[in-house]
Amino acid sequence: MATLAPHEKKHKVTVVGSGNWGSAIAKIVAENTKAHPDLFEQEVQMWVFEEETTVPESSKKYDASSELSTKPQKLTKLINHFHENVKYLPNIALPHNLVANPSLQDSVKGSSILIFNLPHQFIGGLCDQMKGHILPYARGISCIKGVNVSSDGISLFSESIGAKLEIYCGALSGANIANEVAQEKFCETTIAYDPPAMDSQNPTPKGPTPKSSQLDLTKITDSTESKLTGRKKKLRPMPSEFPPVDHALMKTLFHRSYFHVRVVSDVAGVSLGGALKNIVALAAGFVSGLGWGDNAKAAIMRVGLLEMVKFGKMFFAESVHTGTFTEESAGVADLITSCSGGRNFRCARMSVEEGVGIGVVEKRELNGQMLQGTSTAREVNGFLRMRGLEREFPLLTAVQRILEGEADVKNLPDLIEGDA
Amino acid sequence: MATLAPHEKKHKVTVVGSGNWGSAIAKIVAENTKAHPDLFEQEVQMWVFEEETTVPESSKKYDASSELSTKPQKLTKLINHFHENVKYLPNIALPHNLVANPSLQDSVKGSSILIFNLPHQFIGGLCDQMKGHILPYARGISCIKGVNVSSDGISLFSESIGAKLEIYCGALSGANIANEVAQEKFCETTIAYDPPAMDSQNPTPKGPTPKSSQLDLTKITDSTESKLTGRKKKLRPMPSEFPPVDHALMKTLFHRSYFHVRVVSDVAGVSLGGALKNIVALAAGFVSGLGWGDNAKAAIMRVGLLEMVKFGKMFFAESVHTGTFTEESAGVADLITSCSGGRNFRCARMSVEEGVGIGVVEKRELNGQMLQGTSTAREVNGFLRMRGLEREFPLLTAVQRILEGEADVKNLPDLIEGDA
Repeated sequence: MATLAPHEKKHKVTVVGSGNWGSAIAKIVAENTKAHPDLFEQEVQMWVFEEETTVPESSKKYDASSELSTKPQKLTKLINHFHENVKYLPNIALPHNLVANPSLQDSVKGSSILIFNLPHQFIGGLCDQMKGHILPYARGISCIKGVNVSSDGISLFSESIGAKLEIYCGALSGANIANEVAQEKFCETTIAYDPPAMDSQNPTPKGPTPKSSQLDLTKITDSTESKLTGRKKKLRPMPSEFPPVDHALMKTLFHRSYFHVRVVSDVAGVSLGGALKNIVALAAGFVSGLGWGDNAKAAIMRVGLLEMVKFGKMFFAESVHTGTFTEESAGVADLITSCSGGRNFRCARMSVEEGVGIGVVEKRELNGQMLQGTSTAREVNGFLRMRGLEREFPLLTAVQRILEGEADVKNLPDLIEGDA
Repeated sequence: MATLAPHEKKHKVTVVGSGNWGSAIAKIVAENTKAHPDLFEQEVQMWVFEEETTVPESSKKYDASSELSTKPQKLTKLINHFHENVKYLPNIALPHNLVANPSLQDSVKGSSILIFNLPHQFIGGLCDQMKGHILPYARGISCIKGVNVSSDGISLFSESIGAKLEIYCGALSGANIANEVAQEKFCETTIAYDPPAMDSQNPTPKGPTPKSSQLDLTKITDSTESKLTGRKKKLRPMPSEFPPVDHALMKTLFHRSYFHVRVVSDVAGVSLGGALKNIVALAAGFVSGLGWGDNAKAAIMRVGLLEMVKFGKMFFAESVHTGTFTEESAGVADLITSCSGGRNFRCARMSVEEGVGIGVVEKRELNGQMLQGTSTAREVNGFLRMRGLEREFPLLTAVQRILEGEADVKNLPDLIEGDA
């Protein structure tokens, strides 16, 4: 798929993060570096937040006669011994060329491709630790779902990473549940990658044609950087000794027969999809709770999809492409999955069925975890209200009104009449 | 919504057909003619295929002491007496301004708007009977789902009606289950209406802006007519005494608070959506039967949606608009509903779960009714094979291979790899 011309150097890949999603992505990437030795160094580093743990007795790796099972061990030691993340992705065999590393600086050293897959609240601190230890021309992909919304504005996690590390960073998002991906159940994902034109050594991408209108990345990156650092930074081009990091290379690194990848150029759209879909899933849950049937739910999803498009176009006018939402896994497919059995959908449905607030259901059902949809709905509503734009997004607004007890789910069709 | 300028004449509306979907649409239309006396004559005619029937004992209208209940009666008499279609849409109150009429010619006499809602196999015969009895400038809307596919080509039911009657006919399709619509459970629909520019008395449509590129309807209609009749026919313009029949008027006639309408110009796309979605629903059922989870199902739906777009663009290049499939109720929403609990989805899932042919499940589950998806899959495959285009549509092709026992559902990801 990627160019077969020989290159002096190969890409070294590091995955920063090792939860269940991090480990699942690391498994895929290590399978592909092994399959493409012309492009990648086979060994993939996975940075692991070190902790002492034991092999759970439910694990197939548990052996009562072995100290490795009976005494607490370092997680990296267990992963590298068993080739399994016994704590966060148990009973999934990891490739032997995937190496767990407890040192962040050591794990990213010399890597030209960095994959970020960790809870978003750790981005800032980890990037601070990585700074000065990464290749200045490295390229990143953020697998962190969603965006950061406040009444001030919206920022992409990939942008924050890029600005902090002074590298270009794209995004990966899709209808993906980590455990299903790890079990090699078929699914798809979307990678958004659109580095600045300064990577001029890159030939025309050989992968799927980028569908979004090319955005001026220098401008975007500059503005992000100047926002975060107060001055302009120049990105460093990838040296010509390396295979070009383009759409084709991204597909080669992530695509598997059970994990189909489409590469687009719309980083903002891919990131927004993963955030806004949770608000729509709440609305779908509300009408399902009323027993209105599949047609009503499909109508809410369709209206939600179009408000997602409108939101993207309004606030990321230069880059967002309608098709990212309506045609890609990070858009319509992720929305469908979230409205089928996702936790936002389920809790919203139960709250209407039982006639109780969604907070009550959340506490009871989620074991201390928090719903993403309710906080995103509040944040997005604050963002829209500050700009006097609530009426432009009837569904997103109605969800927040319902959550606040100011509107009745039964009136949802009237509240979104403006969308018809 | 529509123009409020007074017009000398009002539109008379007739619904041809009175099954559960026909009666549900007639109910909506009669509610709207009553609400808009400036545009429409209040009375709506509904042609009913006359039959002798009894009021079912389960009906709230059943009265053991009345001859109307205990002796077989003409269906039109029962509908007009009870204002309920006791046989095909029981326990739903119909507006009193909806009049059942057993005479086809009499029911369409003087009507400027004709709504067709009947099984497609009756179109030809009924149009023959109507010819010469309708207003020559009448406009039609077909609520008949799907398209007619043979290895020779694809024809739209709306086109067949238009050609037979020498009128312009649009189409209505969406994620609509007749009984849910009749119960006023919220849903949406799409109307495609794009009459020839010769209706030049019409001002710019006041409804939602037509999203598809305007197609040259004179050309389309001419070619359809010349195909069917061997000579060119001119459509008759709507006289200027009538309110213009435009997108705004269509919305006024069909939109209700529980039945949201969007009007577009892409008749072919709206019609194709209702046919092709059934093939995709089979594929979604197949992978669900394997227990692959919601992500796999969403991936199949997304790929199916894009093949629907591609099919439309390839064979109706001048008229089909991507957004009809990806953004409208007749596209993505109808697909979602069909892949949630529709009969094609359910039977396909059961066939994989049980390891039996889908025909076995169809016989057992559907009480003698036939699956639409299997015949559409076969017809569409024949159409593609004749043109050497099977490989351009990996999912549509794979479904037919699976139905024929030539491919294994487990290989579906590989079979559709070309779509990624």
